[in-house]
Amino acid sequence: MWTFINGDWVEAAKASVHVSDLAIQRGYGVFDFFRTVNHKPLFIDDHLARLKQSASILRLSLPYTLDALKQIILELINRNQLATSGIRITVTGGYAADTYSISTPNIIITQAPLTMDDVFDEKKSIRLITEEYVRELPTVKSINYLMGVYLQQKVKDAGADDVLYVKDSCISELPRSNVFVVTHNNELLTADTNVLHGITRKHILQLASSFLKVKEQPVHIEDVLQAKEVFVSSTTKRLLQVHSVNGNSIANGKPGNVTQQLYQLFLQLEQNNTLQ
Amino acid sequence: MWTFINGDWVEAAKASVHVSDLAIQRGYGVFDFFRTVNHKPLFIDDHLARLKQSASILRLSLPYTLDALKQIILELINRNQLATSGIRITVTGGYAADTYSISTPNIIITQAPLTMDDVFDEKKSIRLITEEYVRELPTVKSINYLMGVYLQQKVKDAGADDVLYVKDSCISELPRSNVFVVTHNNELLTADTNVLHGITRKHILQLASSFLKVKEQPVHIEDVLQAKEVFVSSTTKRLLQVHSVNGNSIANGKPGNVTQQLYQLFLQLEQNNTLQ
Repeated sequence: MWTFINGDWVEAAKASVHVSDLAIQRGYGVFDFFRTVNHKPLFIDDHLARLKQSASILRLSLPYTLDALKQIILELINRNQLATSGIRITVTGGYAADTYSISTPNIIITQAPLTMDDVFDEKKSIRLITEEYVRELPTVKSINYLMGVYLQQKVKDAGADDVLYVKDSCISELPRSNVFVVTHNNELLTADTNVLHGITRKHILQLASSFLKVKEQPVHIEDVLQAKEVFVSSTTKRLLQVHSVNGNSIANGKPGNVTQQLYQLFLQLEQNNTLQ
Repeated sequence: MWTFINGDWVEAAKASVHVSDLAIQRGYGVFDFFRTVNHKPLFIDDHLARLKQSASILRLSLPYTLDALKQIILELINRNQLATSGIRITVTGGYAADTYSISTPNIIITQAPLTMDDVFDEKKSIRLITEEYVRELPTVKSINYLMGVYLQQKVKDAGADDVLYVKDSCISELPRSNVFVVTHNNELLTADTNVLHGITRKHILQLASSFLKVKEQPVHIEDVLQAKEVFVSSTTKRLLQVHSVNGNSIANGKPGNVTQQLYQLFLQLEQNNTLQ
């Protein structure tokens, strides 16, 4: 397996950075992550645009144009020959002589195999707990997951699968997923602030707008608890139903028809975008 | 220069970690930092105890006992022969196969030269701006300095030197320093919550208690603006006067006698602790 680091192709096992990198010193860097389907990168332009925006907000100079990055990614895919995979582009704060100031970023692009089920499993759903928290600089896909990783034990102790961030009774996101509410009036609600603008989220909103009233607005925790359906979205999950929040089951745990419909539409879109 | 990584002594320039480390993937790790004075580590037991506590809260298993770490540090000092230096111990989340879960930590100990002036300069003081923010898990010396590094530009644009974190009108700390207020009643105030418990802070509180009323309590931003003196403390700064906050000068910018007295006491303590 090949990894790309700062212009060099190296064996994945040998891909390392010096300890003076600002990611290791100060947790400072951004990344993006997307899948390949059928050897094709999925929604790559969306992901590269978001990477550029994340880097810009953190004042990291991307060492390549997005076109050049795309060519590197296509070469990575060609070298590694993984049909179904995850590709991660990490851009760090670089080697800081003073251990604190932004320097010339290091860029690392890795690819790893991924297993995806391409069918909606209506029996699959997740249990959430809530935590009072908003990610720092939430529109930036930074590498700061201190709270997400830290909270894993609390999630486990509660017998749950993941954590939903809440602030002043409004929900925002999960550490690695966006979250949506389907109301009994067939409205689709999702938070507009304090969230990362997920690429899967973006496409779901577009797909849903043809048959649901879509509202990007503050979403109250009560909206979640009273919902007809709740689901989360991410690159690796596509859409996944939420069974319960803090032990309160959503709609008595019934399978979500809207979630299933959107999953099918998303899968179709994904396939259309990655035809040979 | 030598660096210690996971049991190996390597040339500092070759000290690297694989990109799958949770520090690079998720900004997850802890560290501690102390000085050597006269080839002796300063307050090393305090720093190692805090490292252990930070690691414990983040569920990182320290790969060595504190006694073993101390021996490694003494060997590092002996190998590198730097009289005045900074030593950093970093403990990361380790190599995570799933890029998200805590694994066997990597431990890295680096040493670098440091320039210290051993005199109090009453003309030296810093200008602060404030920012509404509390560090995540503030009692942990984690590597998460996303906001601190991010805010550097805002500090620069304001013509200031550093940023003071404030939450609900109470101050907590600077990204890398604690902060103290001397009142006109000769009380020494410093925040008790939402702060890292600095080792310099600890010794200042002990030294001050012999001649000031010391209060660890919530400190209001108004206490800062009305103060007789305000100073910050850190391993590399010892004590350093604050000239102004958001452009409001403290006590008309007069030199701080209490700050100077505490600086002298601290310097004496430091020298007593690092005699040959």
